[in-house]
Amino acid sequence: MATLSDIGVAAAINILSAFAFFLAFAILRIQPVNDRVYFPKWYLKGLRCSPLANGAFVSKFVNLDFRSYARFLNWMPAALQMPEPELIDHAGLDSAVYLRIYLLGLKIFVPIAFLAFTIMVPVNWTNNTLEHSGLTFSDIDKLSISNIPNGSLRWKFIALSFLRKPRSGKQLGFFPTPRFWTHLVMAYAFTFWTCYVLKREYEIVASMRLHFLASEQRHPDQFTVLVKNVPPDPDESVSELVEHFFLVNHPEHYLSHQVVYNANKLSELVNEKKKIQNWLDYYQNKYERNPSKRPLLKTGFLGLWGESVDAVDFYTAKNERLSRDISLEREKITSNPKSIMAAAFVSFKTRWGAAVCAQTQQCRNPTIWLTEWAPEPRDVYWENLSIPFVFLTIRRLIVAVAFFFLTFFFVIPIAIVQSLANIESIEKALPFLKPIIEVKVIKSFIQGFLPGIALKIFLLFLPTILMIMSKFEGFISLSALERRSASRYYFFQFINVFLGSIITGTAFQQLNSFIHQSTNEIPKTIGASIPMKATFFITYIMVDGWAGVAAEILRLKPLIIYHLKNFFLVKTEKDQEEAMDPGTIGFNTGEPQIQLYFLLGLVYAIVTPILLPFVIVFFALAYVVFRHQIINVYNQEYESAAAYWPDVHLRIIVALIVSQLLLMGLLSTKEAASSTPLLITLPILTIWFHRFCKGRYEPAFVRNPLQEAMMKDTLERAREPNLNLKGFLQNAYIHPVFKSADGDKIDVAMEEWEVEPSLIATKRTSKRSTPLSSKHSVSSFSSPEDNKERSKP
Amino acid sequence: MATLSDIGVAAAINILSAFAFFLAFAILRIQPVNDRVYFPKWYLKGLRCSPLANGAFVSKFVNLDFRSYARFLNWMPAALQMPEPELIDHAGLDSAVYLRIYLLGLKIFVPIAFLAFTIMVPVNWTNNTLEHSGLTFSDIDKLSISNIPNGSLRWKFIALSFLRKPRSGKQLGFFPTPRFWTHLVMAYAFTFWTCYVLKREYEIVASMRLHFLASEQRHPDQFTVLVKNVPPDPDESVSELVEHFFLVNHPEHYLSHQVVYNANKLSELVNEKKKIQNWLDYYQNKYERNPSKRPLLKTGFLGLWGESVDAVDFYTAKNERLSRDISLEREKITSNPKSIMAAAFVSFKTRWGAAVCAQTQQCRNPTIWLTEWAPEPRDVYWENLSIPFVFLTIRRLIVAVAFFFLTFFFVIPIAIVQSLANIESIEKALPFLKPIIEVKVIKSFIQGFLPGIALKIFLLFLPTILMIMSKFEGFISLSALERRSASRYYFFQFINVFLGSIITGTAFQQLNSFIHQSTNEIPKTIGASIPMKATFFITYIMVDGWAGVAAEILRLKPLIIYHLKNFFLVKTEKDQEEAMDPGTIGFNTGEPQIQLYFLLGLVYAIVTPILLPFVIVFFALAYVVFRHQIINVYNQEYESAAAYWPDVHLRIIVALIVSQLLLMGLLSTKEAASSTPLLITLPILTIWFHRFCKGRYEPAFVRNPLQEAMMKDTLERAREPNLNLKGFLQNAYIHPVFKSADGDKIDVAMEEWEVEPSLIATKRTSKRSTPLSSKHSVSSFSSPEDNKERSKP
Repeated sequence: MATLSDIGVAAAINILSAFAFFLAFAILRIQPVNDRVYFPKWYLKGLRCSPLANGAFVSKFVNLDFRSYARFLNWMPAALQMPEPELIDHAGLDSAVYLRIYLLGLKIFVPIAFLAFTIMVPVNWTNNTLEHSGLTFSDIDKLSISNIPNGSLRWKFIALSFLRKPRSGKQLGFFPTPRFWTHLVMAYAFTFWTCYVLKREYEIVASMRLHFLASEQRHPDQFTVLVKNVPPDPDESVSELVEHFFLVNHPEHYLSHQVVYNANKLSELVNEKKKIQNWLDYYQNKYERNPSKRPLLKTGFLGLWGESVDAVDFYTAKNERLSRDISLEREKITSNPKSIMAAAFVSFKTRWGAAVCAQTQQCRNPTIWLTEWAPEPRDVYWENLSIPFVFLTIRRLIVAVAFFFLTFFFVIPIAIVQSLANIESIEKALPFLKPIIEVKVIKSFIQGFLPGIALKIFLLFLPTILMIMSKFEGFISLSALERRSASRYYFFQFINVFLGSIITGTAFQQLNSFIHQSTNEIPKTIGASIPMKATFFITYIMVDGWAGVAAEILRLKPLIIYHLKNFFLVKTEKDQEEAMDPGTIGFNTGEPQIQLYFLLGLVYAIVTPILLPFVIVFFALAYVVFRHQIINVYNQEYESAAAYWPDVHLRIIVALIVSQLLLMGLLSTKEAASSTPLLITLPILTIWFHRFCKGRYEPAFVRNPLQEAMMKDTLERAREPNLNLKGFLQNAYIHPVFKSADGDKIDVAMEEWEVEPSLIATKRTSKRSTPLSSKHSVSSFSSPEDNKERSKP
Repeated sequence: MATLSDIGVAAAINILSAFAFFLAFAILRIQPVNDRVYFPKWYLKGLRCSPLANGAFVSKFVNLDFRSYARFLNWMPAALQMPEPELIDHAGLDSAVYLRIYLLGLKIFVPIAFLAFTIMVPVNWTNNTLEHSGLTFSDIDKLSISNIPNGSLRWKFIALSFLRKPRSGKQLGFFPTPRFWTHLVMAYAFTFWTCYVLKREYEIVASMRLHFLASEQRHPDQFTVLVKNVPPDPDESVSELVEHFFLVNHPEHYLSHQVVYNANKLSELVNEKKKIQNWLDYYQNKYERNPSKRPLLKTGFLGLWGESVDAVDFYTAKNERLSRDISLEREKITSNPKSIMAAAFVSFKTRWGAAVCAQTQQCRNPTIWLTEWAPEPRDVYWENLSIPFVFLTIRRLIVAVAFFFLTFFFVIPIAIVQSLANIESIEKALPFLKPIIEVKVIKSFIQGFLPGIALKIFLLFLPTILMIMSKFEGFISLSALERRSASRYYFFQFINVFLGSIITGTAFQQLNSFIHQSTNEIPKTIGASIPMKATFFITYIMVDGWAGVAAEILRLKPLIIYHLKNFFLVKTEKDQEEAMDPGTIGFNTGEPQIQLYFLLGLVYAIVTPILLPFVIVFFALAYVVFRHQIINVYNQEYESAAAYWPDVHLRIIVALIVSQLLLMGLLSTKEAASSTPLLITLPILTIWFHRFCKGRYEPAFVRNPLQEAMMKDTLERAREPNLNLKGFLQNAYIHPVFKSADGDKIDVAMEEWEVEPSLIATKRTSKRSTPLSSKHSVSSFSSPEDNKERSKP
């Protein structure tokens, strides 16, 4: 077991590396040439111009103002200065509330650490159990619960302590009181404090969300409902069917609708074209820089062999062919009724109408005409829009089983790969590599590195695998996909990182032993090994939490890619804009990581409070770093108005319950089993608290109150009585591949709509004149057809 | 262990007693004097007149037509003759669907029994394991899985069986095939069959419900929504607040509302008065029959001592005092704003409007302005209408903890009572009883009877206790109360009857041993003892299921009470009507009992198929008996349109999963552990099936599709364009104590409404003239005040 000084050394190394990252960041970020890497958000908002445009040639690329190097940490206070309302305005509610998770960590753990260090650590320290036990121990163990004598909570001790009164307060440390009482009382105090903070935070976030939604500008999603599982009809097209259904069932509120096209193939083609365009640009740049020589290209595999052709001509031809394919595909989609999916975005005249439709059941068969509040247009995951109900449930079953095997058996394929990928088999397969491999240094490097590499690769790809699972499951918005992946990732980490580190062994071995163990043994087994793993987790926090977070701010990968792109591809200002990769927060990987720290903090708060400062440092550091990144870098793909908060809340509750169960297990191994009835009430109360919060606050994240909708409607009607809502909504929910890159054609289409006289033509009357009005609403979609011309380069 | 002949004897006894009950019923039911006991439903419907009215004196009371005695079982075909649509019309959908539960039992178990007896029983029978084992065994065990040799499912056996092909089909019985494969295949077949039947039944019931709701006449609950947790407002009364809120948020649909008065004290007084009235009638009758002597009464405890007074005068005075109190209380309720609860019934102009309001969230705070579809007026449980959200969650926690203790620790208080209530302590407390107790026969009777009596009393009161728990929990309709009680009762029976009989010992001992047992041991422990308990459960089914159901038809308790009342209290035809006690199905006790049979049938289907015929006989018998009772006797208090079906479905699914787990446990003790992976898929598939059904059918029982509502609205508008809906709804949701016993005053109030000119006065405009319109809707409630005059006797 590590001593305090071991941990000190590890801390020093990690602090130094974090410091090195910060230093590198501080130097790189003030170089004008990197400006677009470290401030892309401002460029995207149009609030910052390229510093390359003015000034001397050298100062375009390197910052020569040496004073600015002295203030290399001044980004920290700058990141903290922006007030929250401005932050919400600047980066959206999702990001602002995401930062609150770090703050929540501080709010929970700073008072807990304070209590623990003033009350619990002295109680632990003043025992001599470990010294008398003859076991090896470190100073950290002296501060932990391991230093408390067994059976401190026996009832006879309590009786004794009432008989012998302490003579003075000073002697408290030496008085043989039942010391575990301290831990029990602390467990209650920590639980109540955590619940209190959680409740307050839930309340604040809920009201922030409602306020955000209420003060929002007019958005298409406020008026729109996504209808899934439109039943097939032999006589009518999907579009006609949708129109009729909503004209009949929401006669006073229905405004228009937008069918969903199956444009998966088209978007593939468009992506392909983008890639070709990049290569074309690359070769054109090459040719321009060296006009004496036309760049050549081999057409074979990876450009390694095959016939040599002129690269520019080759890609130009390819590009043109693709453009033709794209316009053909576009025509096919819009003309072929089979490419219309059984889903539609239905817009209403009022927010009230949309709220009503989203929250009610439309048809007596609850698996067709499913309505839900439409996600933001940019949040829609188009591929999943038309999965029938039966397939959805089957997919869910498949994914559940697959995820179970992934979590508990992922070690098996990796072990197989590892057993195959040893040096002998490499030598066998590629004998010409033998002389190189046999060099001693390389051999030992490969031997040390190879077994881990399969695992590392797997862990790198894990978020992608989980995301694919979520996509397969059929969620229809990116935010839902990320939320689902996040909970899967959390579960995986809980089993394989947390439990896997405490009880060494693969997840499957754990599962097997748990099945064969009695129910009350499981928390005991885990609980007993918790104090021993404290030093491991402290190191983990420093490496993953401190240095990892500091590395995040450096953005090494985007930095390299940006400069590569800039060198090879960029011709225009617009290209430069595209070369920036601002990235996103990455909720699906980021949030589960934070949750792991909540779990560690809560579990060790009672057992080994020395771990708490490390967690607190992580939360503080990450808060500053991510606040900086959110302000300057990340560009969120969507805005879900903090719809993920119920998940965050639930996971902290789960961590709390796990910590309570493990404390129960630990105390019962310390022969203080009589504490069980006192501790069992804690998880019951916590579960009840969760149910209370769920009922009290969760609806704010799921449903859309009518009062709010009505209020906004009334206000809007008063302010803009002549609003052309139909024009506003017309092209909001068009598949992004139909939208031109700069969106000018769409604007034209919208303008066309606005000048049209019959603004709200599709009213009750159209029930009689259906063919006409239906055609009308189909033709309203003709804009993609108009667009097909311009997509040629 | 019982042999086949033992069971034969038990069966004979139970069949005889069932037969005796039927005979007694057949004789009693054709006596005119019992007509109101056995055909109350027809009286309540006004379709049957008293046979006492005409004919000779003797034939008024005794049936002298001896031919009718010969056809004493002809009620059975009569009960089966009424077709289902007529039954729904006659007794409501609740009752008709309740009968389908019995039919469902037949549908599930008849094919399963057929399969089991043609395939599995021969496979079991042709083994000699038990004969060679040297254990004592019965013929029943020979038919059960116990007769299969251990380890029959080993994979090597399978391999062997593929190598050696049977030479002819005849030798199958002697061929050493892995016989457990039969059981495995059967387990799959039974599961799929059960799920198939369940799915079909769910589908049918759902469509029956929707059809019932659609074809229903106009009901107040179709237009009405119950609003709970109206927030307090210092400036406005609840009534004004409700009106304003719905005028603003549902301007086009709001029609009127009805506040809820806290009339708990009033209804207590009314009940009290009814009791006093009964006594008054009793003494008046006594006096009329014997006018020479005024009946006297002692005023002390239980009429045992105290001053003697004239009974008629005493009760007349008491009655008058109560009448005065009632009218005072009535005035107090209607005049005091504090007696208005924070809840209201809000009515809408269309079913569409009500469906929308019931399914949506009204306010940004999800714990106020809670709306739900109003229960039928007679289904409302008035006492619970105004419990704030926080208290609801706290109450739920308390009840959950209380129910846990009730289930697992109910034995403790009973054991204490038993230890106190032995003969010695009785002799000590009441020494004068000693000579009687010491008589040998009485002593042995008491000794044999006393220990059980506390338990019996507890079990008798259990449904009441569970109902009190549900009431405390805060459900607002009788149907919800009964549903909740039913699931609690089922859980109690599952733990204490099913598990308690299999593993003898109290529930707490079981719980304790389960906690200390490993997870995979639990199904093994239970599974292994299942075959041994088959004979016990067969006897249980015969006593509780056969004889118990036959006793139900006799209605001994209502018969006796009716005749007592008839003799002492009845003066008028109306009194006689009140003396009938038709009773209800009693969903809260009846359904859990049926579920126990489903559980037994499914668990034993594979293990000891001989139990199946007994279950089938129960289902068939109970179906006939309850069909007769529903047609002729029971009078449902409410109509929930089979809202309980999801519960029924869920419990059968639970029984199915339990049977699968126990089979897994049993097979692993039979050294056929390799079957586990094959069997584990069954519960997974079953759970998935449940989730599928839940998504597919449950919404039909919870939500109200807008399409249906709109259809009914449109039809109604076309048929009755001049409908006075406000008049129709005006007094629908008045607390029953405000309604006069025969309801004539209410009708008057309604007629008043209908002649009133301004039919839909409370429209958008009233927002400006609120005080007037609010007063108006309050004064609309004045009918109870008008009624207060007539409640005097």
